[in-house]
Amino acid sequence: MTTFDVNGVPVEDTFCEAFAGIYARFVVTASDERALKRAARHVSALPATVFGESEAGIERWLDPDETPDGRPGFLVQVWVEKRKGFEENLERELGKRIRQGVLVHPTTRVFDACEDPVGELDMERPVGRCADGYEYTDVEFGREMIHVPIMMGEFLIERRLGYGEGVAGGLVWLYCDSLESALDAAYGVVDVLKDVEGIVTPFDVCAAGSKPDTIYPDIGPTTNHPYCPTLRDRTLDHRLPEDVEAVPEIVINGVDLETVRRAIGIAVLTATEYDGVLRVTAGNFEGKLGDYRIPLRDCVREVKDEWR
Amino acid sequence: MTTFDVNGVPVEDTFCEAFAGIYARFVVTASDERALKRAARHVSALPATVFGESEAGIERWLDPDETPDGRPGFLVQVWVEKRKGFEENLERELGKRIRQGVLVHPTTRVFDACEDPVGELDMERPVGRCADGYEYTDVEFGREMIHVPIMMGEFLIERRLGYGEGVAGGLVWLYCDSLESALDAAYGVVDVLKDVEGIVTPFDVCAAGSKPDTIYPDIGPTTNHPYCPTLRDRTLDHRLPEDVEAVPEIVINGVDLETVRRAIGIAVLTATEYDGVLRVTAGNFEGKLGDYRIPLRDCVREVKDEWR
Amino acid sequence: MTTFDVNGVPVEDTFCEAFAGIYARFVVTASDERALKRAARHVSALPATVFGESEAGIERWLDPDETPDGRPGFLVQVWVEKRKGFEENLERELGKRIRQGVLVHPTTRVFDACEDPVGELDMERPVGRCADGYEYTDVEFGREMIHVPIMMGEFLIERRLGYGEGVAGGLVWLYCDSLESALDAAYGVVDVLKDVEGIVTPFDVCAAGSKPDTIYPDIGPTTNHPYCPTLRDRTLDHRLPEDVEAVPEIVINGVDLETVRRAIGIAVLTATEYDGVLRVTAGNFEGKLGDYRIPLRDCVREVKDEWR
Amino acid sequence: MTTFDVNGVPVEDTFCEAFAGIYARFVVTASDERALKRAARHVSALPATVFGESEAGIERWLDPDETPDGRPGFLVQVWVEKRKGFEENLERELGKRIRQGVLVHPTTRVFDACEDPVGELDMERPVGRCADGYEYTDVEFGREMIHVPIMMGEFLIERRLGYGEGVAGGLVWLYCDSLESALDAAYGVVDVLKDVEGIVTPFDVCAAGSKPDTIYPDIGPTTNHPYCPTLRDRTLDHRLPEDVEAVPEIVINGVDLETVRRAIGIAVLTATEYDGVLRVTAGNFEGKLGDYRIPLRDCVREVKDEWR
Repeated sequence: MTTFDVNGVPVEDTFCEAFAGIYARFVVTASDERALKRAARHVSALPATVFGESEAGIERWLDPDETPDGRPGFLVQVWVEKRKGFEENLERELGKRIRQGVLVHPTTRVFDACEDPVGELDMERPVGRCADGYEYTDVEFGREMIHVPIMMGEFLIERRLGYGEGVAGGLVWLYCDSLESALDAAYGVVDVLKDVEGIVTPFDVCAAGSKPDTIYPDIGPTTNHPYCPTLRDRTLDHRLPEDVEAVPEIVINGVDLETVRRAIGIAVLTATEYDGVLRVTAGNFEGKLGDYRIPLRDCVREVKDEWR
Repeated sequence: MTTFDVNGVPVEDTFCEAFAGIYARFVVTASDERALKRAARHVSALPATVFGESEAGIERWLDPDETPDGRPGFLVQVWVEKRKGFEENLERELGKRIRQGVLVHPTTRVFDACEDPVGELDMERPVGRCADGYEYTDVEFGREMIHVPIMMGEFLIERRLGYGEGVAGGLVWLYCDSLESALDAAYGVVDVLKDVEGIVTPFDVCAAGSKPDTIYPDIGPTTNHPYCPTLRDRTLDHRLPEDVEAVPEIVINGVDLETVRRAIGIAVLTATEYDGVLRVTAGNFEGKLGDYRIPLRDCVREVKDEWR
Repeated sequence: MTTFDVNGVPVEDTFCEAFAGIYARFVVTASDERALKRAARHVSALPATVFGESEAGIERWLDPDETPDGRPGFLVQVWVEKRKGFEENLERELGKRIRQGVLVHPTTRVFDACEDPVGELDMERPVGRCADGYEYTDVEFGREMIHVPIMMGEFLIERRLGYGEGVAGGLVWLYCDSLESALDAAYGVVDVLKDVEGIVTPFDVCAAGSKPDTIYPDIGPTTNHPYCPTLRDRTLDHRLPEDVEAVPEIVINGVDLETVRRAIGIAVLTATEYDGVLRVTAGNFEGKLGDYRIPLRDCVREVKDEWR
Repeated sequence: MTTFDVNGVPVEDTFCEAFAGIYARFVVTASDERALKRAARHVSALPATVFGESEAGIERWLDPDETPDGRPGFLVQVWVEKRKGFEENLERELGKRIRQGVLVHPTTRVFDACEDPVGELDMERPVGRCADGYEYTDVEFGREMIHVPIMMGEFLIERRLGYGEGVAGGLVWLYCDSLESALDAAYGVVDVLKDVEGIVTPFDVCAAGSKPDTIYPDIGPTTNHPYCPTLRDRTLDHRLPEDVEAVPEIVINGVDLETVRRAIGIAVLTATEYDGVLRVTAGNFEGKLGDYRIPLRDCVREVKDEWR
């Protein structure tokens, strides 16, 4: 594999293989900070797309002057696979994440924030009905809102949440010379990505990559065994260079290709600034599975000037 | 409803109606603090028992000298309903919460901590298989551990996680004179409960209670409309006193009846110390649904001396 | 039907009609001769492709210097029909034949020997799992081997067994003047075929041919009634010459067309050396069913010089 | 575990746990010795009850004066599990084993030999129909026989084969000090059992025992891991004494309890005569699964006098 140099670190001249995915994007606000933080943790937790469910992430935190109701909030993306019947799946997953992750936290509200929707889902069925017929719709904050009476007041959610088609599962891999350097570099990259518009990192720093072929198709993707350092002497198809001891993976989902390219570029640039990062590459499936091939070289070139 | 006095606040002389539930209880450790915190958030998030899934909570944080491998950690409980086929459901839910909430976070490990198991689940199938046949079992820390090679080393999980039968869904309700007083009192109670052995509060402060009967049985439990303040003038069966403006609910699950009684007692005692708490009671379904009836009066009496 | 002469015996100028089939080919070794013989018998027994299962045969026995682990062994082929979903069927059949026919016999091991694979099957699921999670993978003999702990040590099997697409069901028929001459000629031919590279005879000497059309389609192929000597006077469509009393059939499967042609040629040449063989022909279905038409005349011509 | 002494070897004072099973028992004869031997190998091969199929064994070889048609033969038992719908399963398995393992071998015939039938199966459907309507029934050898015309004459099978309820899966285990001593002792025991009336050993010497509980219920019984010598240091529930290096298992099925007791007794007596056999015991599932508990002590006492 040929490489190109970034900050003195070789970056493989390969591509991220990413997938078309479906995302809802909405704002959650609360008047109580304790409730808002808890809602953020819960609504974005447990990336479970491989279980046929959803994955999510906090895109960024919002000041009161950035939200429809003038309260502090955050922007969240919830993603499902783009496959037959995804609307039903997305409706169920939004129902679960919003009812169990937002509504139960006092003073919260939900507002649509999908800027380029290809469709929309009516929240009356998966969320409004929780009020057992006592819910009602009204126009507030210039939006059609469902009011769900609960024991601590009313939960408000915008009636229709748009969903878009974005780019999911872009994988940046850091070949590191130790576990410690891997942790510092990877958490450093994720921190920087928190400020990048339009993307989420549903897995934070991911310790476990996966491969497309498996003997357990029913269990979903399994460990990417040729890249597991402890299997170096126990498999014939090991692919890591000798001195690589840990390979953190950063999973990037974003609202469109341009956004994801930018985030990948920033991730590569940031990673190469850390000691112990021997090489940077992209996770891919040899082009067998993905809908997009995103060359690392292009991603880096595009952000280089802006970012410095 | 007759009441008895605690710290000058009337407490209804009624009972918590709780359910037999099944829980796994395990320790998660990590060498990296960032990873450990993230694992704690994810593994315990999104209480989704009403979706036929699971709910969970952090029981407490552990010092290195309290864990099997001498690293910092926490104790977590994962709960499912006790119904036919619960083993299958619990296995799936543990698979999901551990794979998507723990394994993906670097340096984490999982150890059984069920002290009174009625059964155990083998983690080879729901977790070990993630290694696609490269997993192996060994004795370490005096326990049979599955090693799952991943890209950042090896994830270790004890081969068998015990599960016990405990008491789930004990509900303490605080009748408060404003939303603000409700938030302070309820988050105050939840903070105190964090130090109580053997219990978790999967919903933290819950803004929304539910009732057993609904016009939408397919959507699961719906809002407990007679106790929703904003429905005071819109329903005929409203049941809140005039001056009650918010009713936070605290859901308590614990490993046995004694533990849950103690937690309820502590919750009541703590709540009555907050301004704006007009009355304390228990959520129940008039005895129609639960497996246990836990009188508030007994709970309070039992902890009163110890707690002061 | 025109004929051509081989060793003074007329051979019909027709073709063998053969089928594309899928085969796995592997080496079984053992340190104990008793176990090795038993494994050979079991793993290759009961040709049951007409039941939707598999058929198999021992290709040849191997000296210690011919096997990967330097122990005595044999080469076996397991065949399934090439139809939609054959991988699943082959995996199940390999699981059955290897677990019940090899693994249970002490000291045995299995190594891939497919020289021209079109795919491969991972043995972790159908065989490795027998160890209930105690199996592990390691590199040994330059191959990735699964170790399956059993009560008499460890059973070793190469992790991936290749499968190829070969040619199955080539049928050579000997028209004989008595049952006795038929038995001698047919077992004589089968003995000679034991030394031919790349082929197996899953049915040994087959006493019963079959035809494609039947009144019992659910029972699979039925007796080829026009060629049954005892039906000579009981059917209108009898096709055997007057003096033919028995028609042994030899079924040949091989790794490619060339190999099968060679084996058919050798079978014809050998058969014509036996007394009582009145005529040699090929079983076919008038070209209605098979993927290959293999002219007897070509087969004989190709091996004639080499063989003498 | 207490033991009692047999020939200076401790025998555990425990029980074989055996199962009610269903067996057909029939005689196969042939005029050609080559065909007879091959039929014996095929019809009794591949014990696959754990695949929901059948297992079988040659009970003994028969002289011409012991068979209904005065030709040499053998006595075979085919076993299936006794569960709902076993008749259908047994019919299918007999169809497969007789058509693919006997009928295809020239000159063979099948005669019922079930001495204590609880039911019978008509062979017209699973075997007779192979003749596509050309089969016919006649009385011969004092029995109602189906004639199936084939290309090498006629295959004859008695119209109705009886089936009985017997005792299956009695397990004798030999704790041996080396693999070599284990092989000699176990094959020695199996040789002696070949002369014992009414029983078969479908697995011959079995290298792999199984346990009732498994994480892969879909794969059938899995390795009895506490008794695998190579897992001694890798599991917490290892149960073999320190010096035991191999544990061959001998599986005994027989037509009734008395017969199986006798065979177990003979197996124990024989095993204790071999060097390197440190202890003899019985495989059991702690009484959790089986229909019968057969104490080793009783088995030995009953055969001791007769056998010497």
